[in-house]
Amino acid sequence: MTPSWVKEAIFYQIFPDRFHRGTGPLPNPVPASQGFEAWEALPTLRGFKGGNLWGVIEKLEYIQEMGFNTLYFCPVFASTANHRYHTSDYYQVDPILGGNEALKKLLEAAHARGMRVILDGVFNHCGRAHFAFQHLVENGAASPYRDWFYVYGFPLNAYSGKANFAAWWNNPELPKFNTNTPECREYLLGVAEYWLRQGIDGWRLDVPNEIDDDRFWQEFRSRVKAINPEAYIVGEIWDDASRWLQGDQFDAVMNYPLGRAILGFVGGDTLDKDLAAKSGLGRLETLGAMGCSHRLENLFSRYSWEIVTAQMNILTSHDTPRLVNLLRGDLERTRLALQMLYTLPGAPTVYYGDEIGLEGGHDPDNRRAMPWEKEHWKLPLQDAVRHMARLRAEHPLLHSGKYQRIYAQDGHLAFARVHGEAALLVTVNASPQPWKLRFPIHGLWSRGEHALDLL
Amino acid sequence: MTPSWVKEAIFYQIFPDRFHRGTGPLPNPVPASQGFEAWEALPTLRGFKGGNLWGVIEKLEYIQEMGFNTLYFCPVFASTANHRYHTSDYYQVDPILGGNEALKKLLEAAHARGMRVILDGVFNHCGRAHFAFQHLVENGAASPYRDWFYVYGFPLNAYSGKANFAAWWNNPELPKFNTNTPECREYLLGVAEYWLRQGIDGWRLDVPNEIDDDRFWQEFRSRVKAINPEAYIVGEIWDDASRWLQGDQFDAVMNYPLGRAILGFVGGDTLDKDLAAKSGLGRLETLGAMGCSHRLENLFSRYSWEIVTAQMNILTSHDTPRLVNLLRGDLERTRLALQMLYTLPGAPTVYYGDEIGLEGGHDPDNRRAMPWEKEHWKLPLQDAVRHMARLRAEHPLLHSGKYQRIYAQDGHLAFARVHGEAALLVTVNASPQPWKLRFPIHGLWSRGEHALDLL
Repeated sequence: MTPSWVKEAIFYQIFPDRFHRGTGPLPNPVPASQGFEAWEALPTLRGFKGGNLWGVIEKLEYIQEMGFNTLYFCPVFASTANHRYHTSDYYQVDPILGGNEALKKLLEAAHARGMRVILDGVFNHCGRAHFAFQHLVENGAASPYRDWFYVYGFPLNAYSGKANFAAWWNNPELPKFNTNTPECREYLLGVAEYWLRQGIDGWRLDVPNEIDDDRFWQEFRSRVKAINPEAYIVGEIWDDASRWLQGDQFDAVMNYPLGRAILGFVGGDTLDKDLAAKSGLGRLETLGAMGCSHRLENLFSRYSWEIVTAQMNILTSHDTPRLVNLLRGDLERTRLALQMLYTLPGAPTVYYGDEIGLEGGHDPDNRRAMPWEKEHWKLPLQDAVRHMARLRAEHPLLHSGKYQRIYAQDGHLAFARVHGEAALLVTVNASPQPWKLRFPIHGLWSRGEHALDLL
Repeated sequence: MTPSWVKEAIFYQIFPDRFHRGTGPLPNPVPASQGFEAWEALPTLRGFKGGNLWGVIEKLEYIQEMGFNTLYFCPVFASTANHRYHTSDYYQVDPILGGNEALKKLLEAAHARGMRVILDGVFNHCGRAHFAFQHLVENGAASPYRDWFYVYGFPLNAYSGKANFAAWWNNPELPKFNTNTPECREYLLGVAEYWLRQGIDGWRLDVPNEIDDDRFWQEFRSRVKAINPEAYIVGEIWDDASRWLQGDQFDAVMNYPLGRAILGFVGGDTLDKDLAAKSGLGRLETLGAMGCSHRLENLFSRYSWEIVTAQMNILTSHDTPRLVNLLRGDLERTRLALQMLYTLPGAPTVYYGDEIGLEGGHDPDNRRAMPWEKEHWKLPLQDAVRHMARLRAEHPLLHSGKYQRIYAQDGHLAFARVHGEAALLVTVNASPQPWKLRFPIHGLWSRGEHALDLL
C-alpha cells in the first residue's frame, strides 16, 4: 500500500539555499551575515545565498495559495555544499538553514496548514567532512570507524591523488558508506527513523540504486512504516524502477520517464535537446501524440495502479535545466507541459520557480534565487498552475481516474481519466496551430452529456 | 574572588579514552566495537582504547574513595583525535565517549556525590574537521565562514603543502580561530556558556595565552560567572601568569612552577632531567631545600592569597612524562612529591594513574590505559595519596594556612601552614638518609604543645 495522501499531493520542490532568506535565529556556527552572495546574482558553484527554513515558513502562505500541499526539500542537513548533498551531520539541520529548531517550526507550521513535508535522504554516501570519514582521514586504520567505508589503502587520498576508497562517481568529496558494516547500516536506518519521529512525512531517496542491496531498502521500509505507516518513500530512479516498486521497498519513484514523454510531445521542435542531454534527462526524443501516449500507457501499466497514482511525476528538478529553458523560452509550451503534468495519473511535482517561469540552464544556473518581486513573475503561467491545482482538488478523477487514450495523432492528444461511470476528457494541442476536430468518445459519457472546458 | 570550593578541591585529571570503558549507550556515529586497541597494549599516537564517560561513572566510587572530589577532564567534545584536542563539534560530546547523554549522567552522578566536574576548553583553535573550517576547505572564499579563520590564500593547504592559514604551531590540523570576527567570538563564548548551563563547574583553558586579547578573557569571565559565580576558570599557563591573574580573567592557572620546585627538590639526583626537558616542564633544576622554598615563597607572594589557595597545583599531566618515570621509578620519592603537593597552599591535582604508580614516558606513552587489577597498583603509594586527602579534609589549615619556612637546608625542608594561632608543621626529608635534627619553631605553637606526625 502506498500512502493515501500522496494521491492528492502536489509537490513543490525547494532548494533551500535559494528560496527565501527569512528572519529567525541561526544556531552555531553562525556564518558571517555579510558572507552571502547577492540574492539576485547568478548562482556560483560554491557560493551561498543564505536562504533558510525560516524563509520557507514565511512563504508557506504563497506556497499554499499556489495549490502546493507537500514540500519536497533538497537536503537540509549540515553540509559544506550549498546544495547540501555532501552531508556532514545527519542529525543536524544545517546551521545556515536555521538548524533543528527551524525545521521543527517548519513542520509545525506546515502541518497546521494541512501540508506535508518530505526530506531528501542521501544514504549512499556522505560528504568527506562527515565525522566518521574525518576520523579515517586523521587516524587511518587506527580509527574505530575504519569499516564504515570501503577503503583500498591508507592513508586516504581524500584531498589529493586518486581516491583510494569507494566514492560516488569516484568523487573523493563523497565517500560511499559500507552498509554491510552493522554499525554503519544501523546509523543510516536510525537517521531515517529519527527524522520521522521528528515529524517529517517521508523520504525522497537520493541515488538509492547505488545501495545495491534489496534487504537494506526492505528494512528501511519496514522501519519507516513502523513509525508512520503513511510515510512516503520515493526513490530517485531515472528509468525503469520495477525492482524497487514491488511493494516491499519504495512507494514510488521520481517519474522522470513521464516528464520526458511530456517534454518530447509538448516541446516538439522547440525542445532544446542538447541542453536536456547534458542532464539526467538524457537525449529527449520528439514525440507525436501517439508516441507520447504509448510511453505513458507503458508507464501506467508497468506498475500497480496503487503505485502509478502515488508516483512523483516530474518535469524538472535541481538536476535538470529549467523547464522554460528546455522549451527555449516558449511560455505557452511551458504552460502546456505543466497542464499535462497536472492532468495525468500521479502526483505533480513543480521545481520551485518553474511556476513563475524562472530561467536557468545547467547546474548551478538552474538553482537561481527565487525572485519575490512580481515584475519577475510570468503571471499567466503562474495563474495556470494555480488553476490546475484547483482543478485537481475539485476533480478527484484527476487523482484516481485511469488513463484512457481517446485520440492521438501528430500534435494532438486527447485522453480521459476514467473511474467507473465518471470520466474527464483532456485535450492537448501541442501543435502551433489551433486544433478543431471531431472524434468519437467511445461512450465515455452517456448520450446527452457534455464535456466542459475546465482550463 | 575565586570559588570557595576550589580551596578544598583535590583534582583528579582524567584522559577519557584511557580511564575505563564502561557500559552505556553510544550515540551516532557508533564506532565498530572491535575497532579499539587492546586496553593493556601500550598506547599509539592514533589509536583509541574506547574509554568513555560511562566508565568514569562506574568508577566514581573509586575516585571518591581516593579522596578526589573534583574531576578535571581532558577534552570530551567530538574530535578525530584520541586526546580530543582537535575539536570537531563543541556542542557534542564525542560519540565514542557516550555523547551528551553520558556527560549529563556523569554530571548528575558526580554532583549527587558532592563532587565537581571541570572540562578542558580549547578555544584558540579547532580541529580541521570542524564544520566552519571544512566549509572553507570546500568552498574557499565563497564560504560565509571565511572570516572565522586567518586565511592567507585560497585554496587552503589544509591537507598538503605549507599551511596558508594561522594554525597552532603551524600545525594544519589545528586552525586558529579569528576571535576578532564577531560571530566566531560569540560562538566560543556561547560554547562556554552552554556547558555551564548544562551543569559543569568550570573550565580549564587550553593555551589561553594564544588568544592574545585580554578583553576576550574578561568577557569570558563575566559571562561564565553570570551563569555560575562559583564556576572555576583555570588557565594553562606554564610560567608567570600575572597578566591573567588580576582578578578580571582567570581564577587560577595550572601551577607547573610549583610542580617544578617540588620535583627539583624531591627528585634530587634521581630526577630524569632529560625526560622532563622534552616536555613543557622544561629542564628542571636540582634544588636544595632553600632553593625550593624560595621558589615556593616567590610563587605564593606573586599572586593574591585568594588566588594562591585556588591554584591548580600540579606535578604531571597528559603533557608531561609520568611522575614515577620522572623519578626513575623511585616510589619513595614519588610518594614524597605527592605528599608535598598535598601539603602546600593550592589545590592538589593528580593525573589519573599517578596514584597507583602508573608508568609512562613521552606522549603517547604517558596516556596508558588505567589498569583496574590491583596487582598492577603500587598499594603503599595509593595508600599515601588516600591518606593525604584525608589529612587535607581534616585539617583546614592545609587549605588556608599561609606558608612559613621553618628550616631549609640541603635535602631537609620544614615548613608550617599558619593561620592565626593555629599552625601545622610539615617536614620533608628529600635526602636518602634518615633525618634527625632539632630546629627552632619560632613560637609556632605555644609552649608545651607538640607536633603530631600525621603522615
